[in-house]
Amino acid sequence: MKNKKEVIAGIIIIGNEILSGRTKDLNTSTLSIWLNSIGVKVKEVRVIPDNEKVIIDTIRDLKNKYNYIFTSGGIGPTHDDITAESVSKAFNQKYQIQEEAFKILEKYYGSKDFNEGRQRMVWMPSNANLILNPASGAPGFYVENVFCLPGVPIILESMLPGLKDKIVGGNSVISKTISLITIESEIAKSLKLIQENNEDVDIGSYPFFRKGKIGVSIVIRSEKQNEIDKCSEEIIDFVKKKKIKIIERD
Amino acid sequence: MKNKKEVIAGIIIIGNEILSGRTKDLNTSTLSIWLNSIGVKVKEVRVIPDNEKVIIDTIRDLKNKYNYIFTSGGIGPTHDDITAESVSKAFNQKYQIQEEAFKILEKYYGSKDFNEGRQRMVWMPSNANLILNPASGAPGFYVENVFCLPGVPIILESMLPGLKDKIVGGNSVISKTISLITIESEIAKSLKLIQENNEDVDIGSYPFFRKGKIGVSIVIRSEKQNEIDKCSEEIIDFVKKKKIKIIERD
Repeated sequence: MKNKKEVIAGIIIIGNEILSGRTKDLNTSTLSIWLNSIGVKVKEVRVIPDNEKVIIDTIRDLKNKYNYIFTSGGIGPTHDDITAESVSKAFNQKYQIQEEAFKILEKYYGSKDFNEGRQRMVWMPSNANLILNPASGAPGFYVENVFCLPGVPIILESMLPGLKDKIVGGNSVISKTISLITIESEIAKSLKLIQENNEDVDIGSYPFFRKGKIGVSIVIRSEKQNEIDKCSEEIIDFVKKKKIKIIERD
Repeated sequence: MKNKKEVIAGIIIIGNEILSGRTKDLNTSTLSIWLNSIGVKVKEVRVIPDNEKVIIDTIRDLKNKYNYIFTSGGIGPTHDDITAESVSKAFNQKYQIQEEAFKILEKYYGSKDFNEGRQRMVWMPSNANLILNPASGAPGFYVENVFCLPGVPIILESMLPGLKDKIVGGNSVISKTISLITIESEIAKSLKLIQENNEDVDIGSYPFFRKGKIGVSIVIRSEKQNEIDKCSEEIIDFVKKKKIKIIERD
């Protein structure tokens, strides 16, 4: 297997409704799982308000730290949708009508219904490339390595397959989960030793409470299947020795 | 009403499981709603990995930007729980046994069952103050304005009431939601005008899809009830003029 370099991404969730707690962010999880499947590892997420200066500063701060940046939110037709204009400023580009987007939406709505509110959605940075939107017409866009997607989860999700050929990933990270009926403090010492013996894997330990049971999910992550298998065997060995019940393995 | 100054907070969610997409972050929403209720406004959230340098840098970067910082995750008994040690380093404090926490957990587990894994949870920065944990014993802690809480949502939630007298908030932000059967582009222009006429409120517009219906929730937020009422009346006026159906008001 050719060892490709690590490809990393940052996510910027733009929206007062997430910061106020009114809306739970689902897009981080969707984006992270999808990116992981194409070999891109998310290293950081920032949730920020609909504030032009903050959006500009955050994009400028992160775009050179990661191979790819994904933003979610703020590209709709209303006054609080200021992502496209802010991205224009972050890249010192003119904010203007994107001709292709105009044609797409004119066709989508019909020229009679393509009103001022809707036309707002075709204003983008002058060097924007479109990201097609099979769910609701209005395209997202990208400038250099910054990909701007909408905040509504099902619309964002619909746009990811069309993005795939624009992202060049590295090796995918594979994971294996072993769920145990135990508590973390019972397994902490053994797990620490196994982590020390297996430098190429990343072992996470996550307590859970479900269906009246208390347990711990151990998640082993690595780019190398054989390392995961080796580590998994070591975990199962000590778990069996300790007579801890395994309830799930994937 | 005395006009208190704005009190602002940042949240740091620590955990590879959130960045990988395996686990959805629920703590931001819980913390934000609770903080808002006591007059503290969340301005930024960062999700970062279980990585010592990143934790230290993020805490140092944010602790002077906001009145309060809340961290979630990484204070359990396993090898991947490195928040307490990282916070010690961020504040140049010794990482050591916190006597009060030791006594609490020794009593909680009984001295026979207070094993090495569990004892790990009483190591904290030397100047740490405890945050009591009614759900599962092991306390969180705070150093200056940085409050460190666990990642498991129900445990984090159980610790908030005990924190209340340690946080001094400003004016609470009140909100009102009006949900309409419409689409954003139909109301964008009127909403923009109303926002321009009502500088003391923050009007957000959020499309929704639920129970087979497509609609938009308009959320009006302000510290001033009378400003919310005035703005709300203006919105309801134009909505009625446009014969848009209102399905919910709170």
